[in-house]
Amino acid sequence: MELQCPLPQFDFEVITLGHGSGGLLTNQLLESGVFDLLKNEFLDQRHDGATFSLSGPLAFSTDSYVVSPIFFPGGNIGELAVNGTVNDLAMCGAIPRYLSLAFILEEGLLMKDFWRILVSIKFAAEQAGVKIVTGDTKVVERGKGDQIFINTSGIGELHPKAKINKSRVGVGDRIIISGNIAAHGIAILSLREGLQFESAIQSDTTNLNHTVASLLEVFGDKIHLLHDPTRGGVATVLNEMARDTRLGVEIWQKNLPLAEDVQGACELLGLDPLYVANEGIFIAVVAAEVSEAVLEQLQADENGLQAAMIGEIVDVHPKQVVLHSSIGGKRVVNMPLGEQLPRIC
Amino acid sequence: MELQCPLPQFDFEVITLGHGSGGLLTNQLLESGVFDLLKNEFLDQRHDGATFSLSGPLAFSTDSYVVSPIFFPGGNIGELAVNGTVNDLAMCGAIPRYLSLAFILEEGLLMKDFWRILVSIKFAAEQAGVKIVTGDTKVVERGKGDQIFINTSGIGELHPKAKINKSRVGVGDRIIISGNIAAHGIAILSLREGLQFESAIQSDTTNLNHTVASLLEVFGDKIHLLHDPTRGGVATVLNEMARDTRLGVEIWQKNLPLAEDVQGACELLGLDPLYVANEGIFIAVVAAEVSEAVLEQLQADENGLQAAMIGEIVDVHPKQVVLHSSIGGKRVVNMPLGEQLPRIC
Repeated sequence: MELQCPLPQFDFEVITLGHGSGGLLTNQLLESGVFDLLKNEFLDQRHDGATFSLSGPLAFSTDSYVVSPIFFPGGNIGELAVNGTVNDLAMCGAIPRYLSLAFILEEGLLMKDFWRILVSIKFAAEQAGVKIVTGDTKVVERGKGDQIFINTSGIGELHPKAKINKSRVGVGDRIIISGNIAAHGIAILSLREGLQFESAIQSDTTNLNHTVASLLEVFGDKIHLLHDPTRGGVATVLNEMARDTRLGVEIWQKNLPLAEDVQGACELLGLDPLYVANEGIFIAVVAAEVSEAVLEQLQADENGLQAAMIGEIVDVHPKQVVLHSSIGGKRVVNMPLGEQLPRIC
Repeated sequence: MELQCPLPQFDFEVITLGHGSGGLLTNQLLESGVFDLLKNEFLDQRHDGATFSLSGPLAFSTDSYVVSPIFFPGGNIGELAVNGTVNDLAMCGAIPRYLSLAFILEEGLLMKDFWRILVSIKFAAEQAGVKIVTGDTKVVERGKGDQIFINTSGIGELHPKAKINKSRVGVGDRIIISGNIAAHGIAILSLREGLQFESAIQSDTTNLNHTVASLLEVFGDKIHLLHDPTRGGVATVLNEMARDTRLGVEIWQKNLPLAEDVQGACELLGLDPLYVANEGIFIAVVAAEVSEAVLEQLQADENGLQAAMIGEIVDVHPKQVVLHSSIGGKRVVNMPLGEQLPRIC
């Protein structure tokens, strides 16, 4: 269900260069609903930056979002931009608190599309429990951008029980994935290529911070590492893990959670789901002794219904990821070279 | 003088879509010099975000930079992106500490141009005393961007003596400007329009944080408000100030510092320098009793040599900016409607 807020009465139907001027038109754009929609005590300061108090260990993350198309089954670039940065903070073991929001708009963007994106941003921020406290709007000439690019940067406070660090990953640790893989990439690709499946495959974009916080609350420093397999998919995250820890990674294909329709689409398109982007799942490397309990807790969480134990850290084939296939073979899973699907996020 | 670092041996001369994939090519781009160039203990964590400790009141700001052309007399988009966000934090009364850095690259961007920009970013960050702790790189297809867009977001700690707030501006406060106006806008416009003046007019882009910190150290809460007149120029900042405080603003044209060559260019181009963008000056609203001392200290600072007292806050014509012209007349200075110079920053 897409949430909606009534479109304010704008005096203009499309974004023009003047909306990026910093002058009256910029003010008009912001006052005509944007500030009201995203209203909070920080944004209301309307200074060059926001001020607030936080203390202790913090996490800070940034991402620019250039996904094409900007609307897709299961979401749009707005909620993707909020969820993506919220999730990056969560992967650091942080409780996301404040986001910045910067737009690069292409001249000619329809106000109704911009508004629809803003409304998604508002609801995604509320769902994640973060506040959008500062922002920026630039406009580029037609043909020098692509409708809308969004940067979000975020600040979070580290969960007091979190000790997330690749140096804490050790042999015997278990690898758990929180849900079905490859949905986001296939949703985008299907739309872009005009492919029709029986039912539209939905992007999995969602905020994972509450799910992660619950795990940290219960399992604390037994959670060694967290990563969300976005661009480059599960294969990339596992390879980075193997490379950075100088340990081996083994995964079991039969345990990899994959929805039937997504699997079918991957086969049709000749894509390995391990390389397809995700926006609503994460990989946790946890101490073996808590792994079953972590899995159980995840499976009781709305974001972890399909969670599975997919592998472990081993002391052989250092820096390599090896997959045990469903039919009994073994193969090395390499890092992808380049772009399977450009502009997936 | 443009600082240089030797260009590493890249295996590629231009940016391709694969460099935004998150896979091997992205890693190659980052490992082939980028991480080494910007090296610090935070960036070296190479996680989805950076973690560090800070406490107390913080400031947080974001800006995306889309300036065209990306290289201009006096600077380039890289140092502009660092200085701009550093200055926004300084205007909040903060000591800038950490920056994020997110690129949207257009397929085909020359590696040597990207490198030149990265080197400027490195030196600008060093000069400002900030660390680049986290980042992101996306690549869009040719024709869907314009060489390079950069977002920087920044976190700073509020200066313990700072009490910057528009609510603290009162009648009788003096308005001081830290230097010559309109240089950045004219530098960009001259280049874009192919205009030749006797000497190339240079952008004033620089970091103002050290200058501001020295003022706050000495004058503390007597500094009521700070703003850097970037997009929309001095006229926009003064109008926002009048609108937000519901007080009147008066300025004296004869005191407005303006270099002769910039003035000549403005006359030639039919531009009012009050509306032209700046990237290396700020406006301070200060208590009358310290205004002479603030001016004196500024004029002894390398960023304030041309500082001048340009006006005051008055209890007449609320929400309006009135200029006393050099020839004795008076006129209202309005907020600009739209874009005088698109993509100035």
